[in-house]
Formats: sequence, C-alpha cells, structure tokens
Amino acid sequence: MIKIFITGGTLDKEYRQTDGELVLTKTHVNEILTAGRCGLEIDLEIIMLKDSLFMEDSDRIRIRDKCRETSMNRILITHGTDTMVETAAVLSSQMKDKTIVLVGAMIPFTFRDSDAVFNLGFALAATQILPPGVYIAMNAKIFNWDNVTKNKETGRFEALN
Amino acid sequence: MIKIFITGGTLDKEYRQTDGELVLTKTHVNEILTAGRCGLEIDLEIIMLKDSLFMEDSDRIRIRDKCRETSMNRILITHGTDTMVETAAVLSSQMKDKTIVLVGAMIPFTFRDSDAVFNLGFALAATQILPPGVYIAMNAKIFNWDNVTKNKETGRFEALN
Amino acid sequence: MIKIFITGGTLDKEYRQTDGELVLTKTHVNEILTAGRCGLEIDLEIIMLKDSLFMEDSDRIRIRDKCRETSMNRILITHGTDTMVETAAVLSSQMKDKTIVLVGAMIPFTFRDSDAVFNLGFALAATQILPPGVYIAMNAKIFNWDNVTKNKETGRFEALN
Amino acid sequence: MIKIFITGGTLDKEYRQTDGELVLTKTHVNEILTAGRCGLEIDLEIIMLKDSLFMEDSDRIRIRDKCRETSMNRILITHGTDTMVETAAVLSSQMKDKTIVLVGAMIPFTFRDSDAVFNLGFALAATQILPPGVYIAMNAKIFNWDNVTKNKETGRFEALN
Repeated sequence: MIKIFITGGTLDKEYRQTDGELVLTKTHVNEILTAGRCGLEIDLEIIMLKDSLFMEDSDRIRIRDKCRETSMNRILITHGTDTMVETAAVLSSQMKDKTIVLVGAMIPFTFRDSDAVFNLGFALAATQILPPGVYIAMNAKIFNWDNVTKNKETGRFEALN
Repeated sequence: MIKIFITGGTLDKEYRQTDGELVLTKTHVNEILTAGRCGLEIDLEIIMLKDSLFMEDSDRIRIRDKCRETSMNRILITHGTDTMVETAAVLSSQMKDKTIVLVGAMIPFTFRDSDAVFNLGFALAATQILPPGVYIAMNAKIFNWDNVTKNKETGRFEALN
Repeated sequence: MIKIFITGGTLDKEYRQTDGELVLTKTHVNEILTAGRCGLEIDLEIIMLKDSLFMEDSDRIRIRDKCRETSMNRILITHGTDTMVETAAVLSSQMKDKTIVLVGAMIPFTFRDSDAVFNLGFALAATQILPPGVYIAMNAKIFNWDNVTKNKETGRFEALN
Repeated sequence: MIKIFITGGTLDKEYRQTDGELVLTKTHVNEILTAGRCGLEIDLEIIMLKDSLFMEDSDRIRIRDKCRETSMNRILITHGTDTMVETAAVLSSQMKDKTIVLVGAMIPFTFRDSDAVFNLGFALAATQILPPGVYIAMNAKIFNWDNVTKNKETGRFEALN
C-alpha cells in the first residue's frame, strides 16, 4: 500500500474561466491513476494545494510531520518543481526507514501536452522499489535529494555530480 | 542508458482510415518519451510490430536473442498483453545478469483514454531500479515473470500467489 | 430547438478491451456538445448504432420515417461515412420543409486525432442556418445530397460537379 | 475561399514553462483545421495576438481595415471573448457586402477540455452560409452583433432580446 500526499504545484493547476488564471482547486491524481488502470492500493491525502513558490518553512515542516506520522513506509508526494529540492532537504532529516519520492510536472495535467501522467507512473514505480531515502523523480530519472537541481532555463532536473 | 525493444501489441495500434481496422505500422513510444520530457539516454529498436496473439515461438526466440546480444543490461520491452507472460518465460532462461521489464497497454496510445503513457513511465522507472530478472509491469504493479497471469475478464494482471 | 438523430458509424466507435475490436455501444455526442459549451436546446435520440456498411434499406426507411414523424424542422443525423450518401438520397424524397444535415467522422471520437468534435460543431451550425433540403457536412464543406461522393482513396467527400 | 483573421484571445493561449504564465505566441488554428480534415481553401492571416482585454480602439480599427481591404467576402475572425462584442460593433459600420463571423474559446485549445475545436468548426460553417452581416458564433449559437452580450458569471453568450 502506497501513501500519496498532494501538496499542489503545476501538476494540478487548471484554468479558471472567470478570469483566465491558472489555479489550484483540487487534485487530478485520481484521474491519472484511473487512466493508468492502477491496481495498487493507494491512500491519497491532500495536505495543501500550493504553488511551491509560495511554500514557507511551516509548509515544509507540515509535510515532513505528515510523512513521519503516517504508518506507511512508501510515500509519493506531488509537489511544485520550483522548490521541490528544498522540501526534499527538509524531509531527509530523521526519516531513515521510509522511501519518499517527490514528483511534479512541467505542464499541468489539464493540458494536452502535459508530462503529468508519465511522471506519476514513473514515480509510482520508484516509490515501490527504491530503498529508504528521499528522492526526486523527474524527466524519467531518479535523483537523490542531495544531488539534484532544477535548471531554470531548460526546465530539466540535473544531477549536481 | 536503457534499451527499449518494440515488439508491437495494443499499445502501438492505430486507426486505418481506409477500412476502419486497428493496425500496427509504427511505434508511438518516442512520442510518449517526449511527452514525459524524458532526459534518459534511450536506445530504441523495433524488433517487430505484432499483435501478441499472433506471436510464434520463433518470434519469442528472436526477442530473447536480441536481449542476449545487446551490450545493455537494462532492457524495456513493449509487448501485447495477451501473451506477455509466455514471452517473459522464454526470456527468463539464461539471462541472469540483465534486468528486463515487459510492458504493454490495455488501450492503444492513439485513444484519449489510453493507459500507455502511464504504463511506459512506470515501466521505465522499474527498468532502471530493479535487480536482474524478468518482470512484467502493468496496472502500476511489478510482477516476477513466474508469478503473474492476465485475468481475461477484468483485463488486469494478477499475482498467482 | 434542434433534433439530433444518432445512427452510429465511425464517429461513435470505441475500443472493446476484451477482444480489441472497435464497437458501437453508445453515443459520445453528448460529450462533444458539453465540450462545445453548447447552449442550444437539443433533443437527442438514438435510432440505431450501426456501422453504415451494414445498413439495409429498412434501416434507411426507419431513419426517414423518424425524420418525417418528428415535429422539428431542423435535424442533424450522425451516420457512418461509407453509405451516408445513400441514406441522404432516401431522406430527400417527400421532405420539402425540413433541413436535414448528415455528419460523420473519419476517425472515432475516442481517438486523440479524431475529426468528430470539429465536424459536429460544423454540422450544428449548418443545421441551424441552411434552408430546407438534405445536406452532407464533411471536411468543413456543405454538399447537397445529390452532388457529393466519398473518395474512398483519400477519405474525403467531393462535389460531383 | 474563406479568409481567417487571427487576433488572439483565450483560444490561442499556451503555457509558458519558464514562469507558468498563459501567453500568446502563435496560432493553433491550423492544427484545428487539420484535425477537422478541412477541405476548404483557407487564407489565414495573423493580424495580432492579443488578449482582448488589452485591445484598444486602434486595434479594432486595424481589424476593420483588414476586413475592408481583403478581396474576400467571407471572413472568420478569432477573438478574445471579453471584448468580442465591442469589436463586432466597430466592424459593422460600412461593411454591407461581407459576412464576418467572430469566434473565440472559453478554454484555450492547449487544454484537454477546450471548446476551441468545436467552436471553430461551428463558426466555419456559419461563415460559409450566413448572408452579409457581422455575427458572433459561440455556444453553438449564432448572434447578430447588436443582439448579444457575454454573461461574465456563466461565461456564456446570450441574446439581448
């Protein structure tokens, strides 16, 4: 059984018709799991729905506490890509026995051209197989939390070393 | 670096306008990797484009030989779901040092409602992480080749034990 | 108020997972009208769900009778493209006061690459505006029923003169 | 032969990965015409790519001059929905011999859930059939330019009388 924590980010943004803004009002992760004919038992919980540029220390601590408190040892977290690495660093302390994978999208699921479905499938395999640790799963690659950065120009995650 | 062998199956079927049949003429896996902003180095090769119901022993042996001959140790194979388990069994002999993951789709990529994108993302993570062995990755689950069957009624893969 | 009669055809075909066949089990026209934020009052009725290659004279007469019996004067009919022209000919007799537009799709709505949404939008405008007569609306063109043929090679409808 | 003038609006907005904004950089109308297997001869021209909230009088006059100057008498204009009615009013003066149809979308084409494809199909039929005049084609309805308003709450166009 896998725990999925939703925190928001580009992945779940959708178009608000009244003003043309992209907003976070709900998660589309269940739709993605249905599209993938997911046969896993999943326990999905929305912690928050935030653009990760607006996440504060208190938000990251809340996510960390949620990871600690759950009885499950395999945890997938959806997260905005801009500060995913910062949150991963906060999660890495005192969490020796859990496998935590952070994933996001460069283009929202609501767009035809989104990477969200591929990324979530990818991350869900990583969450099931990887040994305890905190990881970022993006661009069909798995990164340790302390060896990754987002290249703002290309929009790609890269290993530091 | 990952080797992807294409063998056909539902995943790559597309609509032929002239007679309304679903046919295999090319692979869509590159489109899926692009959608997933895949940053991995991939070496993709089409071995055949067959509905797996029409695969013969010689086809499975050809796929096995291709797996043996490649210098790469991490191999993803796209395959029709109907006889995926049979091919996996053939692959399992004398292939102790390679990680081979078979994946397919219940609905072709060309359909809006396809599971192909999710499944390929999932399988690509599994191929990178799993220890040597032959696996089937479907329904967001990883199965050992000798502990899986496709339930024809539900269209879902299930563990035997 | 517009009457929509559903008769089947490629437009409504969907993938049957159990055997990989394309089948007609329901209509997707309501989904298309929702996608188009259709504000018209529509009275939709399924007459049959047939591949038009298998339509018989009795089917065409049934469609004609339905068109005669309805009190509405503006009628849109979804129909397979292969015998759309034959049905249009049957409809043209003794129906002087009604505007009837036949429309179909070369690729089913369930495919990403379908022409169904565009075609239905196009035909719905034609149905509202055209004077009484029987028309075929395909390839962004409007054809009189007696001046059109489907080019089987290109899959395009063409005027005879 | 139909003239299509592109002026921008929600229809053509796309996601800019670097900052997560929705921006206008090109038109998707050719993609939509391809999806609809459009067999019409179309002469497409981008006049501007503007959110219609930022259109000024000079923009509307430029669009009007373009409509006057073209030798074609059937003109489709893509336009943002917020000030479509204002532009239609400007176009209506001294244009007695041309059929001009304005169309837009409530959700950009780049979204899965867009109304753009349906709307463009609808408007393209209207442009071919309607007598000279200036019209707005939205929500599967045709409105005269002087008898329509956009209901900002529902996002729907409504007749005034």
